[in-house]
Amino acid sequence: MTNPALALDSAAQDLLFREARTANTFTDEPVTDEQLQAVYDLVKYAPTAFNQQALRVVLVRSAEARERLVAHMADGNKAKTLSAPLVAVLAADNEFHEELPTQFPAFPQAKDVFFSERAVREGSARFNGAIQVGYFIIGVRAAGLAAGPMTGFDAEGINKEFFGDGEHSVLAVVNIGKPGADAWYPRSPRLAYDEVVTTV
Amino acid sequence: MTNPALALDSAAQDLLFREARTANTFTDEPVTDEQLQAVYDLVKYAPTAFNQQALRVVLVRSAEARERLVAHMADGNKAKTLSAPLVAVLAADNEFHEELPTQFPAFPQAKDVFFSERAVREGSARFNGAIQVGYFIIGVRAAGLAAGPMTGFDAEGINKEFFGDGEHSVLAVVNIGKPGADAWYPRSPRLAYDEVVTTV
Repeated sequence: MTNPALALDSAAQDLLFREARTANTFTDEPVTDEQLQAVYDLVKYAPTAFNQQALRVVLVRSAEARERLVAHMADGNKAKTLSAPLVAVLAADNEFHEELPTQFPAFPQAKDVFFSERAVREGSARFNGAIQVGYFIIGVRAAGLAAGPMTGFDAEGINKEFFGDGEHSVLAVVNIGKPGADAWYPRSPRLAYDEVVTTV
Repeated sequence: MTNPALALDSAAQDLLFREARTANTFTDEPVTDEQLQAVYDLVKYAPTAFNQQALRVVLVRSAEARERLVAHMADGNKAKTLSAPLVAVLAADNEFHEELPTQFPAFPQAKDVFFSERAVREGSARFNGAIQVGYFIIGVRAAGLAAGPMTGFDAEGINKEFFGDGEHSVLAVVNIGKPGADAWYPRSPRLAYDEVVTTV
């Protein structure tokens, strides 16, 4: 289906949005570091406030680390998190402001002017990190892979287990791979345009 | 530049990520309701937790409403918010849970089991709404338009001015249009893969 109001080609629309689905089962086909690097090197260009780039990614590859992660997942998420070819823990770096002098050269003072307070930094890192979670999910799909994003987990447990420095807050855990048998539930409805968009 | 690790075609990669930039000036070319509907009808399929779809969009079209919005923007954002062909106020609906029985039929009890507390709903709406802000920015670019997302504004002022029901929290304001003269600053650097991604 081609919509003349969009510049993005129809195949790309399907790949990223219309045919892409949240996968709950995966094949055994490995997901390579090269694929993840390609995903990152694409989505890193999408915008954040003050170019803060608070998102951090931990790729959970070893069996030992996978077990440690699964222990903190909600019961309904354990089996798929154990079986996915690759699992990414997405977290906000609450000390992102340390990077601002180099990452936002237009206003290097932003680090101190706007982000000297930890609570402000945490809120900004969570908000902009969440926007980047959206970009990351789109990026996984751009690599021809299915994403299975989850928020059902013990966040404090994951923070301690995988970061331990008190400076990172987990945002989402994403299973990544090629969809397996019966990979998805029936698609749930979506709100109509008129239910979401108003004009003033 | 073609990266064989990505399934998304190179033109789409450029359109959405590599060549797309945050615009600060715009041409006079109007942005139509048909374009915004196409954007929404594409990005609505991207996932949120419990399919909660907390994002709401107010298109600020009238001169009177534009002035009301600009009054709450930070000084550095006033001129471009006044001159953009279209401005969208993106907000979280903190009462999104009312939609869950129809939008998440797999577990209609989610409304009461997980979201009976307002503070929990607010946190979830802000987090998932932010993810949807990411999708929305990508969608604007998919329509061949430039987005100018901003977070520099008086949030309480916008909430009262444009919602007034105490149930919505503004997340971002996005200027939308075709880029004009000197539309962007030099692109700021991005963190390298090894600064963001680790493997365990």
